[in-house]
Formats: sequence, structure tokens, C-alpha cells
Amino acid sequence: MEATVVTANAKPLVKVAALCGSVRRGSYNRGLIRSAIEMSKGPINGLEIEDVDITGLPMLNTDMEGEGSFPPVVEAFRHKIREADSVLFASPEYNYSVSAPLKNAIDWASRPPNVWADKAAAIVSASGGSGGARSQYHLRQIGVFLDLHFINKPELFINSHHPPGKFDKNGDLIDAQTRENLKKVLLSLQTFTLRLQGR
Amino acid sequence: MEATVVTANAKPLVKVAALCGSVRRGSYNRGLIRSAIEMSKGPINGLEIEDVDITGLPMLNTDMEGEGSFPPVVEAFRHKIREADSVLFASPEYNYSVSAPLKNAIDWASRPPNVWADKAAAIVSASGGSGGARSQYHLRQIGVFLDLHFINKPELFINSHHPPGKFDKNGDLIDAQTRENLKKVLLSLQTFTLRLQGR
Amino acid sequence: MEATVVTANAKPLVKVAALCGSVRRGSYNRGLIRSAIEMSKGPINGLEIEDVDITGLPMLNTDMEGEGSFPPVVEAFRHKIREADSVLFASPEYNYSVSAPLKNAIDWASRPPNVWADKAAAIVSASGGSGGARSQYHLRQIGVFLDLHFINKPELFINSHHPPGKFDKNGDLIDAQTRENLKKVLLSLQTFTLRLQGR
Amino acid sequence: MEATVVTANAKPLVKVAALCGSVRRGSYNRGLIRSAIEMSKGPINGLEIEDVDITGLPMLNTDMEGEGSFPPVVEAFRHKIREADSVLFASPEYNYSVSAPLKNAIDWASRPPNVWADKAAAIVSASGGSGGARSQYHLRQIGVFLDLHFINKPELFINSHHPPGKFDKNGDLIDAQTRENLKKVLLSLQTFTLRLQGR
Repeated sequence: MEATVVTANAKPLVKVAALCGSVRRGSYNRGLIRSAIEMSKGPINGLEIEDVDITGLPMLNTDMEGEGSFPPVVEAFRHKIREADSVLFASPEYNYSVSAPLKNAIDWASRPPNVWADKAAAIVSASGGSGGARSQYHLRQIGVFLDLHFINKPELFINSHHPPGKFDKNGDLIDAQTRENLKKVLLSLQTFTLRLQGR
Repeated sequence: MEATVVTANAKPLVKVAALCGSVRRGSYNRGLIRSAIEMSKGPINGLEIEDVDITGLPMLNTDMEGEGSFPPVVEAFRHKIREADSVLFASPEYNYSVSAPLKNAIDWASRPPNVWADKAAAIVSASGGSGGARSQYHLRQIGVFLDLHFINKPELFINSHHPPGKFDKNGDLIDAQTRENLKKVLLSLQTFTLRLQGR
Repeated sequence: MEATVVTANAKPLVKVAALCGSVRRGSYNRGLIRSAIEMSKGPINGLEIEDVDITGLPMLNTDMEGEGSFPPVVEAFRHKIREADSVLFASPEYNYSVSAPLKNAIDWASRPPNVWADKAAAIVSASGGSGGARSQYHLRQIGVFLDLHFINKPELFINSHHPPGKFDKNGDLIDAQTRENLKKVLLSLQTFTLRLQGR
Repeated sequence: MEATVVTANAKPLVKVAALCGSVRRGSYNRGLIRSAIEMSKGPINGLEIEDVDITGLPMLNTDMEGEGSFPPVVEAFRHKIREADSVLFASPEYNYSVSAPLKNAIDWASRPPNVWADKAAAIVSASGGSGGARSQYHLRQIGVFLDLHFINKPELFINSHHPPGKFDKNGDLIDAQTRENLKKVLLSLQTFTLRLQGR
């Protein structure tokens, strides 16, 4: 167990890498990450969330790997995952599964040494239909191999096509109840991360 | 039902689009497609299989779509899928699910109008561990939304790490039993395609 | 292909075995089957639906099988499945999967010779949360081994906890829109069954 | 963190409820539990494993519940789960999913108050084909709702049809390598349980 310097009443800091599975402008899932970051700077104490960009990663091709080395943009991405205590996936559902950009990022960071290993994780989704539920269960199965420990509760599936509108035209989360639900996910992730780390 | 001109004893022609989920050189899954094509030119009558390349597709971003139009490389890909009677996926398993390049290709061809709709399909996999089984069940769930009709039997999971060696150093399938199993998949796909088309 | 005698304008008869995964009184899923049977006697031409009771089946234990024979109640159940052209599952979701009574019935009828083989099938669900979606994808995976051919569309997930009320206190389906959705499932199952049978 | 009295070098005791999904005589999965219990009495320090019988449970019917009370055999079963620190599932694969008896036991213990909540868990399987892998991923999805925390590694899938024979005619595990693999699962479960409990 590492030494952790904390001031009175403060929680130890949990660093979260947040990944958005959608690369389109105005993505609601990116809006969820913006909202999470905002909460981490305000009402939630002890969380530091970074939006880790995955749009610049090349499509995975193991022929691109050298002797244990990766293209610089991949190395930079892997470094950010390695440094994080836990992971927040904002995962849209495309055709009943995860998006290709997210799977690609996951696969790059899983190349030996797998930098996901033994971290806590949570998933939030904004999507049509079941609000991304199908993609989340695929992601949980992927996480078994990655050795991620997902929180079980609460799950957050946001049906973005169902009124009332939960996002504005910029993709910002504006629904109060959904913000409250997102906050509960973040608090659960924080607690589970600290518990797994024995802090 | 469309008019089909066939010579005596000949089966009507089934056109198959074959997609390989791996983009690396020497991919065993591409070797499976080469082997399938070879069979379609020899022992199997009435199948025409084309290896449809997906490596040049950009990462899907719906911002790249115009008014119902797609980038030229995407249009060309979608055209090949639309023209096919059925689909053969050679799907490696990455982190217990399908590869990102395959998911990306799937997602592009699903954009309205969805060109996968109502086709027959089959999956073959060469991978470690369970031979790609986990990725195949994810692909089957994806296929529900795509409206693909997968054959149920036989399933083909090739454990490429398990001796005896099933592929040579070029990725060519050299194992007689596995070739026989692949042939059975192709025959089942052919039969199911004709049955669904009422031919 | 078997000879089928049909009167002018009439569709050939499709016999459907309907199974309800819930054994409780007032089950909404049984209400769906009652509603389907009612439709088959009225607006839908060419469908004959039987509610096949599974509550009397003993828990599966292969020690109970003789030389290719089964307990009488199991034989009777297997006979009804064998005689059907297709299958309608009314599958509630218990703990994110199918119910034990339904799985038990499925397993009994799968014992060699598997009497599910090559039939068309559809699933409808009334449940909380995602309306049974998670259980349906498990059932679809089970169907791969059973060799069932599920319709892809439409899918019917009924969130029974979400207002307005869709069932009355007897479990009868009273919501007009949901009845319309159920009807579409039945018509799709009928069409797919006839297509697979080449009728 | 609760006070835990332990002697020098001894690990705190972890109580494991072991459930076998097969009810047939000579079940290989029950053989796995016997082998696990044997290890807990010998080489593995700090584990107490009880084979919790599920064969006497009635098929779940929520009509059988009184005001928060259950039939005595169900109460006794729920008590054993509640008292355990973690859970070991020996889960055969029937038709690509979990067995009905196991699902039934799971569902009974999930009735409010859910007695599975927040426990660590592991799965081992002996089955044909992929050695039970498909059933294990279904069980993991079920565990999300139950709020079980499954170990990710190692996974144990035993192909019982594949030579060399791993079980004798009584269903006892006789293969040394498989015993070693089983031991690693138990040690991983023990470690993860203690970690989650902060012991």
C-alpha cells in the first residue's frame, strides 16, 4: 500500500481516464464526460478526470509494433491509461455493440504489457433504444480479458431519443435527474477504486 | 423470386462477400478466406467468393456523411456488400470481442440504407484460446440489428495456438481436417442462402 | 417439401408452440401469449398458436432418461415442440437472463434427438428495466446450439413498470400500441416460418 | 475494517459457498467442488469451502413467497449464501448457457433482500466444446445484477471430452495440471475476497 498524504477530511485523489467511444462533433457521450469533469471540479471531492482523446489513434495493426514499442501517439495514449487509477467509458451503442474507435483504443492499450490491468472501471452510455445497454455488456466481457473491475451499480443507460431532451444542441447534459444519476456512478467508481487499492 | 438461368445439374450462383477482421500481414483469418476462395473455384460448385478489403476504410464518423452520400472508398465497400447474396466473416478475437477494423466496416455498411439487411451469413475464426468463439457470439448479436441470418451449424473455431500447426508461415491453411470443416461451413452457407432466397 | 392444401387466398397454416417463462399467476408474459392466441383466432390468418405448459416438467436430470426415453410429461412436451412449425417464447428477464423454468424446458427438448432443430422462432418479453432485452440475447445464443432461426425484426421489449399500464390486474394486455407491436412480431414469425419451409 | 484475530502466518478465514449446476450422479462439476474442498483442507490455508446443495429447491415461483418469507428449504439455502464470504460456481454448460437448477438457485437467493450482494465470486466449468466458456459469460452478466464481483483471472474451462481423461468414472478430478489450475482459481478467489473486504 502506497503512502498517501491527505489533508484532514479530504479523500485521497483518484485519477480517472475518461474515454469517449464516439468521434462525432456534438457527441452526447462526450457531453457526459464534460459533465463528469465539471462535477469533479465542484461537488465531488477527490476525483480528477481527464478526457483522454482516442481519435488520433491509427487502426490497430500489430505489424506497426516494434520490439515492445508503439507509434508515439499510441505510446502517449497508453501512458495516460497506465497513470490512471480507474477508467470511465462513455460508450455509445453502434449496432448492438461498442464503437470501432473505442474497441481500437482498448486493443492498443491491451498490447503487452496490458496497461488496463487491475483497474476499476465504470460505463455510462447515451444512445437510442435501450440506452446503450447491449454495448455495456459487450464491454464488460471485453473487460474480463483486460482485467478491469467494473462497478456493478448503478448502471447508467441514457435513452437520448426519449423525451424530455437530456442534452442541448452542443451535446451538453442538461437534465437534472440524469446529472444526479451520473454523479452516483462517479461516486461508486471512486469508492470502488479506493477499496480495490486498499486506500 | 427472380428468374435464374441454370444449366442442368448446376446450382444457381451464390455470391459471397468475405471480410477479414485482421489487417496484419500473414493473418490466419485471411488465410481462411484464401482457402475458401480456392474451394469455390474447385470442389464447391455454385459459390463465388470475393475477398472484400476493409483496410482502406476511414474510422467511422457520421460527420463524414453528406446528404445520404459517403466517402468514395466507403461507397465502393457498401456497393460490394449490397451486391452479395451472403457474407462470410473471418473474425479474429481481440480481447474477447470482434476486431475494430471489422466493427468499423460493419458500422459503415449499416448506415442507412443498411446494406446487410436480410442476407445469410457465416463466421469462421482462427484465434488463440477458444478459437474465436467469444467474438462470434458478439458478432451474432450485432447481426440482429443488421438483420443478418447466420447459419447455426457448423460453427468453426480454430485454435491456432494449439498443435498441430494449422497454418504455414504465410498464413495458408494447411490442415486437412480444418479444410474439411471450412468446406462444410461454405456448403451450409450456400444452402441457407438459397433457402432464404427461395431459389 | 410437403403437399399443402390451401383454399384460395388463404395462407398455409403455421403451427406455433408458445412457451411462457414465468410460472406465477397473473404473469404478464402469459398475458402476451393469451393476446397472441386471440389474434390468431381473429385478425391474423393462417396461424395456430398453442400455449404449451412447462410448469409440470421436472428439473432436468439426465439420470432420469432411459434408453432414449423420457418421463411421460417430458415426452408429451417434446411431442408438442416437434409438431410445431415454429416457436414463440414469452420470456421474462430474471437477473439479466432467462428464467429457470424456461431454461429447463429448453434443455429437456434439446436432449437427443433435439426437437427444436431448424424451426423459426420469435421472442417477446414483458419485464422491468430494459423490457427483457438482456434475456432475449441470452436466448438467442442458446438458440444457436438448438438450431433455432430467430426473426431479427421486430424485437419486442415491453417495459411493464413504465407507465402507462400495459396490462390489467389479470395480466391481460390492454395497451393498443403494444398489441399492434405484438401483431407485427407474429406476422414476421409467420412469414419467416413459411420462407424457411419453402411454402 | 473489522478486527480480525489471526495467529502468526495464518491467513484470515474465507468462507466459500460452492454451488454445482449439475444434479446428475457422477457430475464432473461436482467433482471439481470435491477437489476444491480437499485442497482447502490441505495445501490451501485459510479457505473453508462448503458444497451447498441446490437439488432440493423448488422451481422458483414468486407466488410461493409470503410476506418476506420463503419456504424453509429456500430459507436454509439463502442463509448459507448470506453467511459465506464468497461464492464458487461449478457451472456446466447446457445449450450454451447456465443450467436450469443453477439459475433457479441464483434466482431464489436474489429475491429481496438479495443475499449475493457484494460478494467475490469465481466460476469453474467442466463441459464439452469450449469447456463451459459460453455459460461463464452468461453467469458473469447475471452477476452484474446480483452485484457479485468475479475474479477475472485465471479462468478455468475444462474440456471434459478432450483426451487425456481429466475425471475418473466417479467424477473425481484426476488430472494433475487441471488440479493445479483449480488451485490457482481458489487462491485468486481468496485474495480477491480479502481485498474486497479490506482484510
